[in-house]
Amino acid sequence: MNEILRYQAGQIPSRQPDELAIEEPLEIRVKGKAVSVTMRTPGHDEELAAGFLLSEGIITSWHDLVDIEPCKHDTLGNIVNVTLDSRLAVDFARLTRHVFASSSCGLCGKATIESILKTIDSIGADAGVDAAALLALPEKLRQAQPAFDRTGGSHAAALFTSAGELLVAREDVGRHNAVDKAVGYALLNQRLPLDRHILLVSGRASFEIMQKSLAARIPIVAAISAPSTLAVEFARESGQTLVGFLRGQRMNVYNGAERIAFTS
Amino acid sequence: MNEILRYQAGQIPSRQPDELAIEEPLEIRVKGKAVSVTMRTPGHDEELAAGFLLSEGIITSWHDLVDIEPCKHDTLGNIVNVTLDSRLAVDFARLTRHVFASSSCGLCGKATIESILKTIDSIGADAGVDAAALLALPEKLRQAQPAFDRTGGSHAAALFTSAGELLVAREDVGRHNAVDKAVGYALLNQRLPLDRHILLVSGRASFEIMQKSLAARIPIVAAISAPSTLAVEFARESGQTLVGFLRGQRMNVYNGAERIAFTS
Repeated sequence: MNEILRYQAGQIPSRQPDELAIEEPLEIRVKGKAVSVTMRTPGHDEELAAGFLLSEGIITSWHDLVDIEPCKHDTLGNIVNVTLDSRLAVDFARLTRHVFASSSCGLCGKATIESILKTIDSIGADAGVDAAALLALPEKLRQAQPAFDRTGGSHAAALFTSAGELLVAREDVGRHNAVDKAVGYALLNQRLPLDRHILLVSGRASFEIMQKSLAARIPIVAAISAPSTLAVEFARESGQTLVGFLRGQRMNVYNGAERIAFTS
Repeated sequence: MNEILRYQAGQIPSRQPDELAIEEPLEIRVKGKAVSVTMRTPGHDEELAAGFLLSEGIITSWHDLVDIEPCKHDTLGNIVNVTLDSRLAVDFARLTRHVFASSSCGLCGKATIESILKTIDSIGADAGVDAAALLALPEKLRQAQPAFDRTGGSHAAALFTSAGELLVAREDVGRHNAVDKAVGYALLNQRLPLDRHILLVSGRASFEIMQKSLAARIPIVAAISAPSTLAVEFARESGQTLVGFLRGQRMNVYNGAERIAFTS
């Protein structure tokens, strides 16, 4: 337990115990090569690696994975080794393409979305959810966020069935990591594609959240906070339902309202 | 203006106009090479590039920069070309070292912090701030956050003097970008080092926020929300003051309380 100095105006500062959200680097290795170092909250690292590799397009299903395990020589637990099906060709350059894309002088969000959609089939149209079931999800997420209650410093992501049943909830200092872990859980438990599921994130919905959800073929994405322009454009192009400001008894629907059954 | 479907339980959903936080990719090019693609809110891109290159250790002062300007062939405004002093050696590998570090099996946050501190002098000890001045900063930041008021979807970072005067506030869909822009502003206006300034971020304080603040030699970092373990460890190693949960009339001090004058 950490000790901090707590101060309130007009009072004498006092030393008090405090719990923090844990942040440590995780290196993901594929065929012995480091493909990513991310700052994450330790725990569920195999899920994080699986979800990351899915969203990066390196793997597409559970069958592509032979093994994910902590590096035996790493006493700190901050390295995972991923063993892929030997028949799988790994495009290591692809893993950093978003960083070193030799893009033409026409870089834009729309083009980025289109290049992603080229590699993924359009999303299923037959998933649906009741508005009342959606409105009930934030409270279910809160109950599945023990770390947030203790530290106030973690993001959360959860997968629900279209009936609103919790499949998995994960917390992390990084909001993308939380999504990777939740999706990675589903992948490792052979629950992909998630074409009848809902992803709920505790914060905002950005381009990258949409990209990760599409890789798992999630038709409905909901956020407690705001989406960005590119998240909305992404949803329109992919055909996903995007809900924001899902709080209290309200929500904003940015795309795909036809999947939501409203009762007035 | 975007149009969305707004729903409240018990009512009929209605179409309403809505404003979103803008997210678009920005490619930063150094010597014609793309060194980073980040999703950001357009605007102050030169500052973002300058702050990014400072925090990555590519440049250390305004003198290293010859020019930063939008790519002339890019009609979309999503590419900036950076021209550095020709005498400056650029280690392009360093820019991706955090991704492809061929680290030994001993990767940990503490080692990562130590490797960063090796390249940067320890932080000045003579900066100080009154607790009352600190408590007044969040309201000043809120007033400098027009995009948040409209969209609810942007992060903010601001630099203040130790007397609590606002130097610059920047908003962005990415919290790291907001810090890069604020620090980049200071760099481009020859205000570095910021060794008598305070950085305030609207969200959480993570490892990367601390790293960026140290690159600008900021002695006091404050966050509206929680810090992570690694942010606190970083502050202890660097000697920076770290304040979290700076809200209402309260704050938690995680390190460096000697820089704060408390009055009871």
